[in-house]
Amino acid sequence: MNETRKIYMDYNATTPISAEVKAQMIEDLNIYGNASSMHADGRHARNRIEEARQQVAALIGGKAPEIVFTSGGSEANNMVFHTAESIIDGTLELSPQWADKLKGRNEIITSAIEHPCVLNSAKYLATLSKKGTLNCKVIFVPVDADGKLDMDAYKAALSDKTLLVSVMMANNEIGTIQDVKAIAALAHEAGALFHSDIVQACGKIPISVGDMRIDYATMSCHKIYGPKGIGVLYAGSGFPLYPLIQGGHQEDGMRAGTYNNLGILGYGKAAELAKANLADYGKTMRALRNRLRDGLLKNIPNIKINGHPEDVLPNTLNVSFPGAEGEAILLSMDLAGIEASTGSACASGSLEPSHVLMAIGANPELAHGSIRFSVGLGVTEEDIDYVIETMPPIIKRLRAMSTID
Amino acid sequence: MNETRKIYMDYNATTPISAEVKAQMIEDLNIYGNASSMHADGRHARNRIEEARQQVAALIGGKAPEIVFTSGGSEANNMVFHTAESIIDGTLELSPQWADKLKGRNEIITSAIEHPCVLNSAKYLATLSKKGTLNCKVIFVPVDADGKLDMDAYKAALSDKTLLVSVMMANNEIGTIQDVKAIAALAHEAGALFHSDIVQACGKIPISVGDMRIDYATMSCHKIYGPKGIGVLYAGSGFPLYPLIQGGHQEDGMRAGTYNNLGILGYGKAAELAKANLADYGKTMRALRNRLRDGLLKNIPNIKINGHPEDVLPNTLNVSFPGAEGEAILLSMDLAGIEASTGSACASGSLEPSHVLMAIGANPELAHGSIRFSVGLGVTEEDIDYVIETMPPIIKRLRAMSTID
Repeated sequence: MNETRKIYMDYNATTPISAEVKAQMIEDLNIYGNASSMHADGRHARNRIEEARQQVAALIGGKAPEIVFTSGGSEANNMVFHTAESIIDGTLELSPQWADKLKGRNEIITSAIEHPCVLNSAKYLATLSKKGTLNCKVIFVPVDADGKLDMDAYKAALSDKTLLVSVMMANNEIGTIQDVKAIAALAHEAGALFHSDIVQACGKIPISVGDMRIDYATMSCHKIYGPKGIGVLYAGSGFPLYPLIQGGHQEDGMRAGTYNNLGILGYGKAAELAKANLADYGKTMRALRNRLRDGLLKNIPNIKINGHPEDVLPNTLNVSFPGAEGEAILLSMDLAGIEASTGSACASGSLEPSHVLMAIGANPELAHGSIRFSVGLGVTEEDIDYVIETMPPIIKRLRAMSTID
Repeated sequence: MNETRKIYMDYNATTPISAEVKAQMIEDLNIYGNASSMHADGRHARNRIEEARQQVAALIGGKAPEIVFTSGGSEANNMVFHTAESIIDGTLELSPQWADKLKGRNEIITSAIEHPCVLNSAKYLATLSKKGTLNCKVIFVPVDADGKLDMDAYKAALSDKTLLVSVMMANNEIGTIQDVKAIAALAHEAGALFHSDIVQACGKIPISVGDMRIDYATMSCHKIYGPKGIGVLYAGSGFPLYPLIQGGHQEDGMRAGTYNNLGILGYGKAAELAKANLADYGKTMRALRNRLRDGLLKNIPNIKINGHPEDVLPNTLNVSFPGAEGEAILLSMDLAGIEASTGSACASGSLEPSHVLMAIGANPELAHGSIRFSVGLGVTEEDIDYVIETMPPIIKRLRAMSTID
């Protein structure tokens, strides 16, 4: 074992900034004009931002004016739920056409395995409703053992009261990819708006908001080899939208705050590269992931691969190691220079078992003994083989120590 | 006139990133770990972020755990008003001590010259109340001809119904500095919470949240020679707080979203430098500003300096040029290589006269004919002299063309 070896396999938590993006950001540290200023420096910043907007839109087949820059995926997801809240309480004054279409609708449907920022936004609206401040009902639809949305339960939940359906395209922990096109079609059939958190899917699998009929989509830059602190809410032309952050006229009044020049320009470059590399990325990652899966299955008895066997992100492998505890596994891996996670970084620090693994039917012990490997552009076959060699003694030792089984 | 000359005098809109901050950010482009991850990369990012938190806290005499990182000043200001909303509607479950202290309070007092993000956050709560969703009253206190808060009106507005007072420390357009200590003392005497938007004051004048008894303060990094897209809500230990962005456990559950490593680390460095340079900054800026003021007063007839004559930011000079139109002045200045603004960049694009100038008693014509010069660390005496020489023919020509007078 090489003690200075470091293998990063936590790309779903975040990615390093790629060399190309880094090089451009170093140049762009000098683009300091306030993009809302009238003078030459302001106009230059604004022009560059509009170019970046085009690049980000192109990654998902959207149009530039449909891109609202936010501080990240969490803010964008919150904005969608705040829009729903504003429709329900009447603060958002709808056009007569939308007012007619959405009249009397006050139910929100989401899945049980969404990212914490969607779940907690939904729970916030439920809390407001419990307190009597809002009249809204939130329905959490279960998923099957592979993490696919339970379509029967979903259909049963839809009605002419449904205002918004929010279902993620790919799960951050287990990688399962939903049939978003079918889910969106059913939402539209019921007359509801459709939102998808595409943070983990974007840059990993092909996405077309037009073809999939996605009305709103949440994106984040730091998952595609760009900077953190910058994200996007895609909102289809003409769809209702209400600002979460009030103030200046930026983003057509939908998101106040001085433009984050550096973040936005880095996002533009990262999106351009992600689009160009998409096919290669899928092929390379799938090969690495499957090599890791097959190696672990061969070398370690009694393990379980979580997530859908085919409809899964090409880079994500979630494995349960019954009889070993997740944080102890991580610690041993970290000492051996391998960085992964037990699930969402946004949920770390919590003692609760993963809500995603629980939703696919894991018991708490299994959920606590699971590791998410997420590979990325810096990972080699050699790295994979090192992990395949390194994991068995770790799991063996922890299982021997375990008092659980 | 040197045609390639460029003099930036719009530092209140935003500042370039200083060479020292830039150098550190280039290094820190490699700090990519998700600060919520357990592994070595995550822990390293987290440690660096906590160092930056100390540096930012030190700039205002606060403690590190009182610093909540946000995407900027607009978000931080919105968060304060969302906290007030959550107290009023009962979503924020207060400790018995706070519940007792704030019971039945549902009024918010702010000034007529706040930044658009404060004004619009306040107006949002007023709108909710008008629609019957919230039971809140918002009072906008006027200012005098120098932009100082009307203390009699303020005292009259305070009562045992006052939940929150929000008054900015220094105005972004005219630079007037409020007596925040006295305003905070009166708020506390009435039993209310006190918030100050210190975005424009921070790094320009000495600030001690302890001495001034500020409960909440809004800060932004891009006004102190650091990156855009990163700000802070200072919230005193134990004071009520409710998240605007729901999701992960980051910032003690008060602000979800993956940490913006690069922005936060840049903020730490910028804050450290601002603290070290504070005394020098004030002296240098005041000399440049006063040189500009005296030169313009000497060379151009019939102009008016807006803002308080003494209690004013050392770098800010707001001048009305009756008989000339602001955007036309800016355009001519821009052609001569001088960059300034008519007021807040966040309000640009609006055809309304500045709400700040209107609040200090300007008529719409005067308000439309005003320029904000804001100097900064890149400005020299030679630059000032160039502006003093360049402005008179511009104003003379525009006044001659004007059909207004």
